[in-house]
Amino acid sequence: MGGGTGTFTVLSGLKKYPLDLSAIVTMADNGGSTGILRDELGVLPPGDVRQCLVALSNSDQLMRDLMSYRFSKGRLKGHSFGNILLSALEKVTGNFDQAVDKASEILRIQGKVIPATLNKVNLIADLKGKRIVGESAIHNSKLTELKRISLRPRAKANPRAIEAIKKADAIIIGPGDFYSSLIPNMLVSGIPEAIRKSRAKRIYVCNLMTRQEHTSGFTVKRFTETIERYMGCKFDYVIFNKEIPKKDLLKEYSHEGGKIIEVDKDLSKDKFMGENLINDKFPKLQKQDPIKRTLIRHNPEKLAKIILKLI
Amino acid sequence: MGGGTGTFTVLSGLKKYPLDLSAIVTMADNGGSTGILRDELGVLPPGDVRQCLVALSNSDQLMRDLMSYRFSKGRLKGHSFGNILLSALEKVTGNFDQAVDKASEILRIQGKVIPATLNKVNLIADLKGKRIVGESAIHNSKLTELKRISLRPRAKANPRAIEAIKKADAIIIGPGDFYSSLIPNMLVSGIPEAIRKSRAKRIYVCNLMTRQEHTSGFTVKRFTETIERYMGCKFDYVIFNKEIPKKDLLKEYSHEGGKIIEVDKDLSKDKFMGENLINDKFPKLQKQDPIKRTLIRHNPEKLAKIILKLI
Repeated sequence: MGGGTGTFTVLSGLKKYPLDLSAIVTMADNGGSTGILRDELGVLPPGDVRQCLVALSNSDQLMRDLMSYRFSKGRLKGHSFGNILLSALEKVTGNFDQAVDKASEILRIQGKVIPATLNKVNLIADLKGKRIVGESAIHNSKLTELKRISLRPRAKANPRAIEAIKKADAIIIGPGDFYSSLIPNMLVSGIPEAIRKSRAKRIYVCNLMTRQEHTSGFTVKRFTETIERYMGCKFDYVIFNKEIPKKDLLKEYSHEGGKIIEVDKDLSKDKFMGENLINDKFPKLQKQDPIKRTLIRHNPEKLAKIILKLI
Repeated sequence: MGGGTGTFTVLSGLKKYPLDLSAIVTMADNGGSTGILRDELGVLPPGDVRQCLVALSNSDQLMRDLMSYRFSKGRLKGHSFGNILLSALEKVTGNFDQAVDKASEILRIQGKVIPATLNKVNLIADLKGKRIVGESAIHNSKLTELKRISLRPRAKANPRAIEAIKKADAIIIGPGDFYSSLIPNMLVSGIPEAIRKSRAKRIYVCNLMTRQEHTSGFTVKRFTETIERYMGCKFDYVIFNKEIPKKDLLKEYSHEGGKIIEVDKDLSKDKFMGENLINDKFPKLQKQDPIKRTLIRHNPEKLAKIILKLI
């Protein structure tokens, strides 16, 4: 469960094992190409779904490159082809769920990609004396004195998401942008309830870095407890990173104000699993990529191995 | 050979028979969605190729609807999804021929779709004292005192087009917009030469209607002889329509100034095949369709049956 690069990493790693994977994808995004398509065409946000589809695709590299290709010029500038595909499919079928199914078939995906909700929602952050509307604005704002984060209008869970949670042997949440990718799923009515009722192992993959504006000073424990509060129950396992990234990676990152997440000293070893998780490989970025992507990422193979040991 | 709705009709009809079909597609289009993509992204014209791909596709209806879907709002307005797909594939592969191959695979097409040339060309019409540049401008202009029609820069035939002509048992040209779809293929260096050398049966499917601005007053014979002049050899067979369209169809058409093509009285019965060819069914048009499409069309089944008798 999640959305964005973090979920892409988990899925890419787990895909190599004979597992029955379902990706439950956050639907609060309204930035970049996704935001323009939402505004102009009235469609549901395709961006995070696209990334999960690519992660689970068994198509050739060309097909996966096509899905992630961003136009660099003209009226299509900034749009990723995969986003346009999903939006066109939603228009033709009249239904985002069906659009995702058809795209799954085209991309020959292994497993399922399930939008958390099919309602058109916006993420709202209420700070002391100020309201920020929209995931994109929230992503770019300092969340000081955050009082409440919510979805408007109310979001009802996609029945297929509930079904997948019910059937799961393990529920893996994160990594991902905390307030704009992970928490929004917990705000969808029916999702935290289903997680609470589930007999699955609940696993949280903690981020590698804090974000200055959102989670400055958060430790592993604080990340865990914050999401547990939204979820209404505890995790069985928390996977966190104990490796110090190489200096050149940290340098690239430093201007954003993010820091490596501090590990609390009193963590229970039954629940908190510290591992070396950093990907040495510098991620390939497309020149046209309009969003500055996280440069320090989890190693998908290492992450998958640890998850497999727990389930 | 051709491009646009006429070629779509021929291919749709022939597709139901166990034939090895190759569609050689005109590459001079620069109007509408295709024109914008050419201008803004520097790609080759996708529109006519897309129509041939849909005609030959064995995919389900949803996939075919997706390819023809036109966006009706925002920055994507007027673009057909299939054009965007072909342009994105051209960008990712760096090669339009490969883009068409991949799209052919996605759409599970029966046969081959081959761009006549891979050069970026413009259609030029030289009238007395006036030059018109671009297929779209030519399409919308009165071609009085047409002295010469040409491609700039010089277009070299796609080797695969030459190969397909060499191997063919029958070469079927038309129906289609005369000066903007059919003649441009004859202006590609290597194509008329290959047709002349070929031992295939050469069949011309004459249009149903004249266009006021381009072919006003053209009879079946004049259409045939004009294209034969560009081709540099004679057709073995010419299929023309002898049916009078229903009044309501003609009424819809009359404001455009097109008239049913007149049949000359002295046509040789060995070469000229007059048949009832009009499609009773009114074509489905998309609201977003930016171009006024021909409303009086060939019946694909009737046309295919006659072609099959000749080959």
